[in-house]
Amino acid sequence: ALANIPAPQASTIDYDWILISGFIIVLTQVGFAFIEAGSVRYKNSQSIVIKVILGLFLTILIWWLFGYGFSFGYDFQTNFMGGTKLGGANWEANQFGNDYTNFVFRASGAAIAVSVLSGAAAERMTFLAWSILSIVYAGFIYAGLAHWTLAKGWLTTLGYKDFSGAGVVFFAAGVAGLVVTVLLKPRRFRFDPNTTLQFQRHSPIYIAFGSILVFAGWLFYNGGIVAQGANSKYTQGLVAVNTLIAGATGGFFAFIIRYFQYETTSLVALSRGIVSALVAVSAATDDMKPWTAFIYGLLAAVFYSVLAKVIPKVHIDDPVEVVPVFLGNGFLGIFLSAFFDTKAGVFYGFGAKLLGLQLLGLLIIFVWVAFFVLITLLILKGFGVLRIDSETESVGIDKAQCLGEAIVFANQIDEAPLVPK
Amino acid sequence: ALANIPAPQASTIDYDWILISGFIIVLTQVGFAFIEAGSVRYKNSQSIVIKVILGLFLTILIWWLFGYGFSFGYDFQTNFMGGTKLGGANWEANQFGNDYTNFVFRASGAAIAVSVLSGAAAERMTFLAWSILSIVYAGFIYAGLAHWTLAKGWLTTLGYKDFSGAGVVFFAAGVAGLVVTVLLKPRRFRFDPNTTLQFQRHSPIYIAFGSILVFAGWLFYNGGIVAQGANSKYTQGLVAVNTLIAGATGGFFAFIIRYFQYETTSLVALSRGIVSALVAVSAATDDMKPWTAFIYGLLAAVFYSVLAKVIPKVHIDDPVEVVPVFLGNGFLGIFLSAFFDTKAGVFYGFGAKLLGLQLLGLLIIFVWVAFFVLITLLILKGFGVLRIDSETESVGIDKAQCLGEAIVFANQIDEAPLVPK
Amino acid sequence: ALANIPAPQASTIDYDWILISGFIIVLTQVGFAFIEAGSVRYKNSQSIVIKVILGLFLTILIWWLFGYGFSFGYDFQTNFMGGTKLGGANWEANQFGNDYTNFVFRASGAAIAVSVLSGAAAERMTFLAWSILSIVYAGFIYAGLAHWTLAKGWLTTLGYKDFSGAGVVFFAAGVAGLVVTVLLKPRRFRFDPNTTLQFQRHSPIYIAFGSILVFAGWLFYNGGIVAQGANSKYTQGLVAVNTLIAGATGGFFAFIIRYFQYETTSLVALSRGIVSALVAVSAATDDMKPWTAFIYGLLAAVFYSVLAKVIPKVHIDDPVEVVPVFLGNGFLGIFLSAFFDTKAGVFYGFGAKLLGLQLLGLLIIFVWVAFFVLITLLILKGFGVLRIDSETESVGIDKAQCLGEAIVFANQIDEAPLVPK
Repeated sequence: ALANIPAPQASTIDYDWILISGFIIVLTQVGFAFIEAGSVRYKNSQSIVIKVILGLFLTILIWWLFGYGFSFGYDFQTNFMGGTKLGGANWEANQFGNDYTNFVFRASGAAIAVSVLSGAAAERMTFLAWSILSIVYAGFIYAGLAHWTLAKGWLTTLGYKDFSGAGVVFFAAGVAGLVVTVLLKPRRFRFDPNTTLQFQRHSPIYIAFGSILVFAGWLFYNGGIVAQGANSKYTQGLVAVNTLIAGATGGFFAFIIRYFQYETTSLVALSRGIVSALVAVSAATDDMKPWTAFIYGLLAAVFYSVLAKVIPKVHIDDPVEVVPVFLGNGFLGIFLSAFFDTKAGVFYGFGAKLLGLQLLGLLIIFVWVAFFVLITLLILKGFGVLRIDSETESVGIDKAQCLGEAIVFANQIDEAPLVPK
Repeated sequence: ALANIPAPQASTIDYDWILISGFIIVLTQVGFAFIEAGSVRYKNSQSIVIKVILGLFLTILIWWLFGYGFSFGYDFQTNFMGGTKLGGANWEANQFGNDYTNFVFRASGAAIAVSVLSGAAAERMTFLAWSILSIVYAGFIYAGLAHWTLAKGWLTTLGYKDFSGAGVVFFAAGVAGLVVTVLLKPRRFRFDPNTTLQFQRHSPIYIAFGSILVFAGWLFYNGGIVAQGANSKYTQGLVAVNTLIAGATGGFFAFIIRYFQYETTSLVALSRGIVSALVAVSAATDDMKPWTAFIYGLLAAVFYSVLAKVIPKVHIDDPVEVVPVFLGNGFLGIFLSAFFDTKAGVFYGFGAKLLGLQLLGLLIIFVWVAFFVLITLLILKGFGVLRIDSETESVGIDKAQCLGEAIVFANQIDEAPLVPK
Repeated sequence: ALANIPAPQASTIDYDWILISGFIIVLTQVGFAFIEAGSVRYKNSQSIVIKVILGLFLTILIWWLFGYGFSFGYDFQTNFMGGTKLGGANWEANQFGNDYTNFVFRASGAAIAVSVLSGAAAERMTFLAWSILSIVYAGFIYAGLAHWTLAKGWLTTLGYKDFSGAGVVFFAAGVAGLVVTVLLKPRRFRFDPNTTLQFQRHSPIYIAFGSILVFAGWLFYNGGIVAQGANSKYTQGLVAVNTLIAGATGGFFAFIIRYFQYETTSLVALSRGIVSALVAVSAATDDMKPWTAFIYGLLAAVFYSVLAKVIPKVHIDDPVEVVPVFLGNGFLGIFLSAFFDTKAGVFYGFGAKLLGLQLLGLLIIFVWVAFFVLITLLILKGFGVLRIDSETESVGIDKAQCLGEAIVFANQIDEAPLVPK
């Protein structure tokens, strides 16, 4: 299978556009850091920011060494993973493509997947276990998925459709997150019926700041996928419009639904609704009309709201709500695209073939991701390094391991020497 | 009247440039959220972020359904509002323009107006009233103004000049804000001579973070207006230089003036001065020399400083200072451009014709905005949903309605079970 | 000496690319504000944000009036400084260059240098002294360096190599910072053996948010240097890849080294490591292979870690760690490039000529910067306006001069009038 980016004339590829998108995806990590620091308890907000940044850095490094080659290298007709272009070797920039530009965009995309996953590790996983999981996930598990789909591999050739990664980026990260949070077990006393602990999030406004930032970043991320020069200016605009409408719809309706569920006006629901809808719409952003993006946003809000209520009921402790937002809505997006795709969907008279392919794709992603994440975690557990100890958990990772609190208000007025008495 | 964007050759329009500008305008909403969360009392900082995001989302949705068509649709020679291109119908991307790209940029611009307005609703308006006002303002009131001016409508044809919206975006939002804050009445005890309440802002550094972010965003916003290809590279650069110089001048002198007013070095004055000058210079950023931008910035700082002192004296309670920054400096910018415009201004020997047109424009904006905002608010008041109840106001909207505080420092150390005694 | 940007055909210069880079550099100031507010004690976090913004604004204004002309104006064969293009006079936009675009990018770059310097002024310098130092540094000291190097002046002509300013921007600002922090003397009781004061930083997560933002901004900053049209798409991509890899490597290894130094997982080390590596790699980002960027990042982490331990031991009080990050790694980057430069380096068989030139360049920068900063500070000290008074230092600049704290959590519940008893 061909495992390279498509090869238009050099002059018609907007390399600047792709680079700018890649750079802004790095900026988007500020958004993820805000979201996750706001979603955990204050005593662990510093540690989760460390996890976000470690995940970003290890992804960049492992993608340079292996991930980019595994994804976008030549696979010698094995259809499994690429084997060239490892460690920056033989990267090219000519009329057939630009590996440097492509690396910046794709490694940044991989970092999004890892940032999602870091939410599932919140408040419980050790830094060592997290670092190893990041490397395995970005460098092998995700790189494989990317080879089969984003790099025009066998799954895409078969007919599976996924515009910017609702399946391979977000659903996959959600599956990994589910395995992680289940294996880690809930935070201490989280579902203890006798506890008085409230597990309050550090800051809803941090979650909101981060979510708007991620919204803006997503416009670049989705935009960066479409880069074929002047001919595709229609598609670039359409993708942006659909991203805007879906995000706005998802946020608004998640807010409204939460109000009817709990009679509260929740900034957290508003924020999660945005990201949920962005995940769902990423399945087919270039191939839908704006009113379809509205429907995606609306259904994403419903799906998020239901899952966010169900997940804690089944005693899955998911502090950053990775499962409802990413697993749930990654599934939803890929599923819906089987119906709404204007060139192959059920609603446009093309029958159920795409539906079958989309479900097959989701199944393959689920099995591949769950299997390897599970093995990785079991090994880490076997070595006793998976979860922080109880004392650290009680005190908080920040105080126990990171030299203190995330925000310090001590004023340390040193008046005495000024006023000799 | 023609109600479409101008129609150069497709190849000379920088669609990427416009899209990037539009995307960054969404990012700028993080800035507005920071500014407004920092400007209100802590107990309402979560609720104002909700208002900013609700305003953004409702603007995107109503602009898709109506606003874009009202502004940039064909008005059948009525000169009132457009009636085509509603709900994404018949949007085109060809050599005459690109509705998708234009929507992203223009809807994001409309969202700025609504964000400004949300400041006037701070700490007092219900979410329901705010949502309805956002929809009416973005979808009808602002869309009308945009049709008459930005879409090359009758007011622009007449000769009224407004580069990126000092009048129709910022002065108009300021007028709406004045009506809103007067109708809402001041916060409880705000002007009570016996109160010991201090009405302290939540965070000056949040205001500063947000204002620098808005400064950067404004460079994109003003830049996005100029998009006619290689021929206009001079203008794009000039606009950026003028925006930089005006913002820096405004911030610096507002800081200096505040020092002489109150002998304090105020980060809030520094931050407000930036935005004040950006508002003023938006009247004619493409048609002035850098030293004119300096004068705009200086006068904006003076105007802001005077108004910020006067407004509370006349018992108008304006927590986010919408009236001095936007109404005041929107007026100033349009007024000054009648003198400084290099192609039609008094100082360049073109007489007072532009002055008359600019004042006429401001008058029309004032009447149109004030009238419809007033009616909307009176209806909301009639239904008893305009203002939050006294108990909510006393406790704070965050605790009363939004599940608690904006930032939670509870550490919840659960030591007991660890150390059985 | 020619003192203008090179003159390719207008159509091959990516003016949009340069403008976007410049705009994002302004956004990067939000990152510096976060980093510095998080690095100082809470009681001075508002005042340091004021310094960052004042520095940005005064740089823009002085660069418009003098700095741009001094740097990029014609120097009448004196090789000292330019003397044309002052105050925006005779700026051009034609096939030989675009002064407007160039100003936006270069003034933003100058602002980075001043932001670095503001860290050295933290918690001790008066606003007046800081303002004067900013003006002198940006408008004269830095402008001179920029003329000799970035504007293709005599030092560059001689053979000194510095891609985006590891020497003239970062090493120079670090030297200035060292002089500033030594002349200011440490914070009260900082090295008092009897003190119980802990000098805790306000917020590690602020430092992290800011550092990721600066990382993203640096991709634009380095990218903006390469703007010669389609032919340089390879270089633009390479620069981005090297910037990504260096930053990630530096952050990761600084984190690891800190762990082995102190058995703590430090978010501050992680954040400082990023910026240290970005500084170092800026010496030659366009002229190295990715594995060289990795080595730069690794050595930057080592160098930072050693210096961060040594500096306090010799009783230099450097709250924002300007000396290890900028002076240290600016030196490292320029030094390493003498070995790793693919076109003139020792390791590529070109002998030690470049090494001599690089060391000469660093020496000239050191002497030039240290001399003029010293004189400026001594004059300010002579007038008694250099350092804040002891009372202000004890109480904190924020409370003493800036109307109060940076973040206020007062809830001010006004229950009484609601419940008449």
